Amino acid sequence: MSKEETYINDLIDFLSIPSISTDAAYEAEVRKGAEWLASDLRNSRMENVEIMETDGHPVVYADWLHQPDKPVFLVYGHYDVQPADSVELWTSAPFHPEIRDGKLFARGATDDKGQVLIHVKAIASLMEEDGELPVNIKLCLEGEEEIASPSLVPFVKEHRDKLACDAVLISDTPMIDEETPAIVTGLRGALAFEMEVSTAATDLHSGAYGGAVPNAAHHLVKVLDSFHDESGRVNVEGFYEGVPEVTDELREEMARIPFHEEALKGELGLTSLYGEEGYTPLEQIGLRPTLEFNGITSGYQGAGVKTVIPKVATAKVSCRLTGEQDPSHVFEKIREHVEATAPAGASVTLDKQIEAKAVTVDAGNEYIQKAGKAYEQFYKNRTLYPKEGGSIPIVEVFRNELGAEPVLMGFGLQSENMHAPDEHFHLSNFKRGIQTVKAYYKSFQED
Amino acid sequence: MSKEETYINDLIDFLSIPSISTDAAYEAEVRKGAEWLASDLRNSRMENVEIMETDGHPVVYADWLHQPDKPVFLVYGHYDVQPADSVELWTSAPFHPEIRDGKLFARGATDDKGQVLIHVKAIASLMEEDGELPVNIKLCLEGEEEIASPSLVPFVKEHRDKLACDAVLISDTPMIDEETPAIVTGLRGALAFEMEVSTAATDLHSGAYGGAVPNAAHHLVKVLDSFHDESGRVNVEGFYEGVPEVTDELREEMARIPFHEEALKGELGLTSLYGEEGYTPLEQIGLRPTLEFNGITSGYQGAGVKTVIPKVATAKVSCRLTGEQDPSHVFEKIREHVEATAPAGASVTLDKQIEAKAVTVDAGNEYIQKAGKAYEQFYKNRTLYPKEGGSIPIVEVFRNELGAEPVLMGFGLQSENMHAPDEHFHLSNFKRGIQTVKAYYKSFQED
Repeated sequence: MSKEETYINDLIDFLSIPSISTDAAYEAEVRKGAEWLASDLRNSRMENVEIMETDGHPVVYADWLHQPDKPVFLVYGHYDVQPADSVELWTSAPFHPEIRDGKLFARGATDDKGQVLIHVKAIASLMEEDGELPVNIKLCLEGEEEIASPSLVPFVKEHRDKLACDAVLISDTPMIDEETPAIVTGLRGALAFEMEVSTAATDLHSGAYGGAVPNAAHHLVKVLDSFHDESGRVNVEGFYEGVPEVTDELREEMARIPFHEEALKGELGLTSLYGEEGYTPLEQIGLRPTLEFNGITSGYQGAGVKTVIPKVATAKVSCRLTGEQDPSHVFEKIREHVEATAPAGASVTLDKQIEAKAVTVDAGNEYIQKAGKAYEQFYKNRTLYPKEGGSIPIVEVFRNELGAEPVLMGFGLQSENMHAPDEHFHLSNFKRGIQTVKAYYKSFQED
Repeated sequence: MSKEETYINDLIDFLSIPSISTDAAYEAEVRKGAEWLASDLRNSRMENVEIMETDGHPVVYADWLHQPDKPVFLVYGHYDVQPADSVELWTSAPFHPEIRDGKLFARGATDDKGQVLIHVKAIASLMEEDGELPVNIKLCLEGEEEIASPSLVPFVKEHRDKLACDAVLISDTPMIDEETPAIVTGLRGALAFEMEVSTAATDLHSGAYGGAVPNAAHHLVKVLDSFHDESGRVNVEGFYEGVPEVTDELREEMARIPFHEEALKGELGLTSLYGEEGYTPLEQIGLRPTLEFNGITSGYQGAGVKTVIPKVATAKVSCRLTGEQDPSHVFEKIREHVEATAPAGASVTLDKQIEAKAVTVDAGNEYIQKAGKAYEQFYKNRTLYPKEGGSIPIVEVFRNELGAEPVLMGFGLQSENMHAPDEHFHLSNFKRGIQTVKAYYKSFQED
């Protein structure tokens, strides 16, 4: 068996463990995932391999620190996976990995077990070839990413010294396409909250009272609609404080990222895109903050007609933030706006649920530049440096707590059905990923 | 046992039948309700007593037509009831009637079995005393009122000759208070529809796409908020066509109805009333049309955060109509408004579910005037002639199909927990109701 075939068999073995973090019924399987990783890291001759307990699922730690003049890398990833329902929508069973057409189908294949194993196997391969690593490496692999990493923030704060490093290497973001690597240089921050509008002690009859009493659904709609102006801009005073200007330079950088509007519309089933005036779609997603409604609920939801005046209406709202926007400040500005906007008769409460600052990485730093060059040895196209619309709150925590540069060096593809049935990972990217990571570490040897 | 005691025992017996029309499990009980009524009508010496089949629950018919020079009255009511859940909120079991403090507690006590039996027992009492009735009477008692009378409209059209009459007597509206009778002289019409806004084939990730794609919840909010202007007026062109001007005379009539704003706010748990500027609350409810949101639904509704961009959003909307507003025309105007208002990327469908024209009764006509006088023999205060905000679509059908004057002569009270736990009926109103109805019929004898 070739070394590559062994690595793929190991990945198949790893993917067979249903390490679903959100479901308590799978707690033992999540731990099995941690144990599998710890064992594989020991086989790779990593040192100080440890399953470290948290209030939730454990963190797998390992290190190899024998190059005192070289940088220290912290590899972060996660071994937990999303649930696989609805199982009947899968072509092959989600925890019985199957290779079809050069792709490995299983829950967790691209998110994130396949990408975690790129790092473990790159280390194993270097060790096997050279008996040592060209740089210092620590691994911090968590089991709660799919449930928003509740234990990792305290873990990082508690183990600041143990995790100390120069750069944090993360493979959990997509490339542009199969031949175009990408290092994400921006992640939006996040603020999520729930808003509840209440008006009356009970739902009221719309015939007996309609016209003279407040309607919670109506008042919620008024408040929600006040959040944007006609140009799609967020209409909350102070919301844009800290948002960087979109410079010509940034615009040129963004314009290099391929974007196919018609293809996207077709794929998502849209008749039209929709966003803030004056920005391209990629700028809207990568550089501009948003305020979105994720869910609204009020009154009668069943079949047919029930002519009630709802007493309560709720909305789940989330913002994506950019630059130096402070989530707490934005939340306060939204609260002031709501208080000024809510109509007479409405009592409004806001409950903050998530907050994270945006992350911006200087694409010119050494860790990024060398990663870009490492990719280009194995992929046809030049590496691109996109700004992503999503948020990975832990990246901000690593930077703040450890003072380390994030290197978001992904090997997945948007098309690989992350969080959906028939999740898969291109084996060509698994193989080239291992080669790329090895070349990346070696590029620091030459300094 | 006095005659009154016998009548109350019969009402208790009638209320023990759980004739819940909306739940198929109770179909046999609904029929039992019809059979009970038919039997009681036969005992009262009514003629041509018949349980008439429809596509749904049956109609109970009976008549007595031996006064050729006198008017023909059609008594309409319903023997079906609302469900009784949540049963644990009741002080005594909903179908084990219990008398406490002069009130009879049971599901259907005031809505509408108690009021139906006022009519049946008034007839029985007249027959017993005089061996005949002073006028001609037909009864049409349905079993589907609580599910919006789907079979009754075709039934009335099919049996136009059988049901022919001069006036339709209905006891299913509230009095002003225990000593102030009321004959409703206006009922608002109704238009109900469901609106669905869809934008994409699936819910989208708010990080990956947020800012550049349409959000169905956001677009629904924009459309809903466009339905009203800042003064609370409906902002749909053509909506107010056919709405009568609120004359000084009408305003004076309305001002005679007692209205206690602070008491209402306390009772309903409101911090403020809310309605169209320039009208009193009673005018807003009785004389002005409305457009209300009865329910809205979109995206994630569970606990915590799910940062999706919803692909679909729905709203249940209903209008109360006044004067000559035509529900079909109003619906078309709303459709035009939605088409002109819906933002790019939104596909909106409207599904009409209910339509009924408003009813206005001339308080000066003989049938109303005599009813008002009959009440005043048994109640302390003068009869009032309010405009109600609710809709009873069948009233319009009786007037259109039979050319008969509706006489909305209620004996219930707003406070009697109609459709709620601990529904009850004041036995004093049951007794005075029978006397009032007898006096009403007798007043036509004197002509």
